[in-house]
Amino acid sequence: MESTPKYVWINNEIVPEALATVGVSDLSIHRGYGIFDFFKIIDNRPIFIDDHLNRFYRSAEAMNLDAGLDRRALKQAIHNLMEHNRLPDSAIKIILTGGYSADGYALGTPNLILIQTPFKMESPDYIQPMKLVTYQHQRQLPAVKTIDYLQAILLRPFVKDNNADEVLYYYNNLITECPRANFFLVTDDEIVTPKDNILAGITRSKVLQLPIENYRISERNITLNDIETAKEAFISSSTKNACAVIAIDGRPVGNGKPGKITTLVSEKLTELMLEQVYYQKA
Amino acid sequence: MESTPKYVWINNEIVPEALATVGVSDLSIHRGYGIFDFFKIIDNRPIFIDDHLNRFYRSAEAMNLDAGLDRRALKQAIHNLMEHNRLPDSAIKIILTGGYSADGYALGTPNLILIQTPFKMESPDYIQPMKLVTYQHQRQLPAVKTIDYLQAILLRPFVKDNNADEVLYYYNNLITECPRANFFLVTDDEIVTPKDNILAGITRSKVLQLPIENYRISERNITLNDIETAKEAFISSSTKNACAVIAIDGRPVGNGKPGKITTLVSEKLTELMLEQVYYQKA
Repeated sequence: MESTPKYVWINNEIVPEALATVGVSDLSIHRGYGIFDFFKIIDNRPIFIDDHLNRFYRSAEAMNLDAGLDRRALKQAIHNLMEHNRLPDSAIKIILTGGYSADGYALGTPNLILIQTPFKMESPDYIQPMKLVTYQHQRQLPAVKTIDYLQAILLRPFVKDNNADEVLYYYNNLITECPRANFFLVTDDEIVTPKDNILAGITRSKVLQLPIENYRISERNITLNDIETAKEAFISSSTKNACAVIAIDGRPVGNGKPGKITTLVSEKLTELMLEQVYYQKA
Repeated sequence: MESTPKYVWINNEIVPEALATVGVSDLSIHRGYGIFDFFKIIDNRPIFIDDHLNRFYRSAEAMNLDAGLDRRALKQAIHNLMEHNRLPDSAIKIILTGGYSADGYALGTPNLILIQTPFKMESPDYIQPMKLVTYQHQRQLPAVKTIDYLQAILLRPFVKDNNADEVLYYYNNLITECPRANFFLVTDDEIVTPKDNILAGITRSKVLQLPIENYRISERNITLNDIETAKEAFISSSTKNACAVIAIDGRPVGNGKPGKITTLVSEKLTELMLEQVYYQKA
């Protein structure tokens, strides 16, 4: 996709992507053991970086992984990588693996990897509304941002066969989340998102704090039946912002078109992000 | 552990272990996506190799991964690696990852890796009996040998704190398995192992076929309560053979010592393995 060579930061070194490798005894390869985080960069400014680093260190602690760098050093590493890659509109993924294990089971010294890729937020008008298909599954360790996406990737053919863009997980009739996004329903006077057994998305946390006139914003249980009476639905994530969901399991949500509250939420999230850019410049 | 350089087979090349690496965009590192299998080698003979390769190809198919090599070519690759490493008593792990993904989500062309490590089956007398601690958890995709051991490795401190050697998973009061071994209980006239929501271990399948006089061998549901009345318990795996479980959750199983049926099963499994060595020699 990119013709210019892209640099990767790995264990305190910045190397061309082709040389950024991990030995085959790493526990991510042997045991799927690792965590990550992911944040956008707009006009050379990392967006909601402190929220993402807070979550990154929480995930690391939850999985008994030592990042090796404190927050200040990690921010400097991010800065150094950005200087090398010069991608003003991009995203950075921070991966922390279980490390090289002597016996293929005990944790080693983690490998820390920063990967920057070009990424441009599209104007809200251009974000394609999405269709979801439901699937019963409860992610293990849902509150931790682990690298476990086995079920999500395995379900890609199922999603395609159901003429959908992504799966919406539920368990025991309660909706939880999409594999890479949180889920919201909109009624006449409420914006509601599931509360339990989910990943606490950074964009989700921003939505919960938005002032939306005449709407209260709540975290609570949502059942599959609640979809039928909803006026709108949307998902939130760092890459999708707030993205309209116009159909679930082949049935339209509300009138089957992106709703005005979803658009309003998306606009207000964009404002929040641009404030981040502005304040870091000032 | 080994002073001689060990070779790794990776994507049709045999390289020294230090050069056996995977690029950071592999889906095992990004998304914990991959499968594996593992078999012993005794006196230069792979043990139950066809059972392991059957399961390997079944796992690959279940996860939409193309191994790239057919069974004949994979056996040749195993043979070539053994010729390089010259480790007559050892084990080989075959790992097949999700491959290099352009977008960090869609499957790429898998990376196939063969890692051989020294391993010697101890005499049954020397296999230390084990203590287990129970934990409620249902593995996702239990029938497939994926690389997902997130929960198992995360529980290592819990296992240690409970003065145990490994965790025994149960769900809704039904015992399933250990993270890397199947579980058996022995009563006065029955050897029984859980039937559903488990990995179908190769050693387990061999136990199910053993002739044990005066005992029927069954697959069926086992509850946590069944432990209390059991005479013996053991786990089965390629590395542990049949290994006595003398305590669960701090309480002795039976008389708290390795039982005679467990010892008999272990001896008969060893006989089966030695037959494999003998017939391959003949």
